[in-house]
Amino acid sequence: MSKFLDVLKARREAAYREIYRYLPRDGEPRSFWELLREYPERQGKGLRPTLLLLTCEALGGSPEKAIKTAAAYQTFEDWVLIHDDLEDGSEQRRGKPALHHICGPSLSINTGDALHIIMWRMLLDNEPILGAESALQVMREVNRIILTTTVGQHLEMEWMRDNRINLTEADYLQMARQKAGVYTIEGPIRLGAILADAAPKLLESISQFGAPLGVAFQIQDDVLNLQGDSKLYGKEIAGDIAEGKRTLILIYLLQRISAEQRRRVDQVYRLPREQKTPEQIAEILQWMKETGSVESASQRSRELAREALGLFQKAFALVPDSQAKNDLQEAFDFVISRQL
Amino acid sequence: MSKFLDVLKARREAAYREIYRYLPRDGEPRSFWELLREYPERQGKGLRPTLLLLTCEALGGSPEKAIKTAAAYQTFEDWVLIHDDLEDGSEQRRGKPALHHICGPSLSINTGDALHIIMWRMLLDNEPILGAESALQVMREVNRIILTTTVGQHLEMEWMRDNRINLTEADYLQMARQKAGVYTIEGPIRLGAILADAAPKLLESISQFGAPLGVAFQIQDDVLNLQGDSKLYGKEIAGDIAEGKRTLILIYLLQRISAEQRRRVDQVYRLPREQKTPEQIAEILQWMKETGSVESASQRSRELAREALGLFQKAFALVPDSQAKNDLQEAFDFVISRQL
Repeated sequence: MSKFLDVLKARREAAYREIYRYLPRDGEPRSFWELLREYPERQGKGLRPTLLLLTCEALGGSPEKAIKTAAAYQTFEDWVLIHDDLEDGSEQRRGKPALHHICGPSLSINTGDALHIIMWRMLLDNEPILGAESALQVMREVNRIILTTTVGQHLEMEWMRDNRINLTEADYLQMARQKAGVYTIEGPIRLGAILADAAPKLLESISQFGAPLGVAFQIQDDVLNLQGDSKLYGKEIAGDIAEGKRTLILIYLLQRISAEQRRRVDQVYRLPREQKTPEQIAEILQWMKETGSVESASQRSRELAREALGLFQKAFALVPDSQAKNDLQEAFDFVISRQL
Repeated sequence: MSKFLDVLKARREAAYREIYRYLPRDGEPRSFWELLREYPERQGKGLRPTLLLLTCEALGGSPEKAIKTAAAYQTFEDWVLIHDDLEDGSEQRRGKPALHHICGPSLSINTGDALHIIMWRMLLDNEPILGAESALQVMREVNRIILTTTVGQHLEMEWMRDNRINLTEADYLQMARQKAGVYTIEGPIRLGAILADAAPKLLESISQFGAPLGVAFQIQDDVLNLQGDSKLYGKEIAGDIAEGKRTLILIYLLQRISAEQRRRVDQVYRLPREQKTPEQIAEILQWMKETGSVESASQRSRELAREALGLFQKAFALVPDSQAKNDLQEAFDFVISRQL
């Protein structure tokens, strides 16, 4: 695993080096560019650009050809997090205050928009590297991926706004597929494959295992939110409960508690974040652990991942062995265990 | 003038017909697509796509080739207004409640992002019509225009957040050039010219008259905000004062009143919108009128426009006369007078 962290680090740093070329330190007006650099300078884990680059290499493509797309994809994560943090009322991001706590909500909406525009600029700059047709194909794929992400985000926020907690596992899986499945795994792997000129058939099978693996990742992320060490995780612990996020853990919990307890959970989830007391959050967190809801969700995540991994091995069976293919396999193990 | 309204109507309707093809009524999930359709269904005036289409035609280009770009440009207006209305705390848009008053701030940020993504989709669909290279050229131009707009928006919001009212006319003109000059006039005209394969020299001269004309338009818009009929104008009267917007009118006012009055204006502008009383707003509005600040700003707008118009006539002197060229001239008259 520690070897994979080196793989991740190298790819993440390559992606961010490219990103910083688009976010000049001496850009004017100074305060505009400073806000744009805030999240990119904190650096995400770089999982998505790493998956993109490894897939491209494993399929015989050149990493130099993929670097702008990897940078753009990481920039997608960075701009969408600016807007998500505001939408979800998050306090922290990557171990520091969320952007809207630094510059206020209005400037942070605009900063997210500006970074979104710069993401497209990076993709436009693929033209001299890939040629016009391929540059456009990559952009069309990114367009599909990120629109799907906004659909998933819409569903999740609508549930929260309407105080809906009576959701089924199927509701959750559909939303998570759109929001995380496509965004975290399917998207970057398909892009990497497109940059390596993969056959349409391979692209299809990538979609089949990529999305479930991304859902597994999301469920595990929700589990970590309740368990992790805030310093490593970069967000506050049980922030998802404070935020009222609809997770698979919540759905399992509601199936396993009394009507009286359900009413109580419903009451607390209806409260705006700032009105929820630490005691209320701690109580629900305890129920989630006591009923085994956290563990069941973690198990469901492992099941989904195992299934997806089988499909990946089938799809990549004919791909020649290489360091990159090996690293990609390790990346998936990492995605499943999420022990970072 | 009424003839120009017909010209505007025809182009606006053509642009929105194209836009609606990207926003299906039966799209799933229903509530996602309904929110995306909300501002486009209210329809803007269509000035920007009209300028784009008229310029393309006047320079011998085909309107069919320009329609997706015109639709995308109108979609830019529509998504950026969703975010602007939230950033500025606006109450109304196009005669109805602002989107965040319908679905809340979180869903409206996400809806703006989704519409932004669909804007790029429209531009990607230029490929079969224009060819890959030209489609990319158009996208690069749009990218430059809309990034400039976010810079102007950033400056303006930063002044408001920091309670800065000691601005010079030069500060204002720079911000207005970035925010409105490029967005409203220079951008659409340059795009129309690019779609007609105009020479680089003509594109350069368009930048020279386009931006000042856009600034003139913005100043006149600020004047109308204080004068207009809410039903026709589609926003609340003196909303700019309530919002604390830094306008040329405010800058002139501060130059023409006593230190005591300046302190009072400063105090009121510092208040959040909801704490400003109708009496406070009415008092400042009266001072703006009494001191001739509204009239002076309107005059400055006319000066800027006259100068720009001279440059336009010079730049287009060799363009053969046509209905489109004539309509374009009328469009500029319309921009200046803004008597809609």
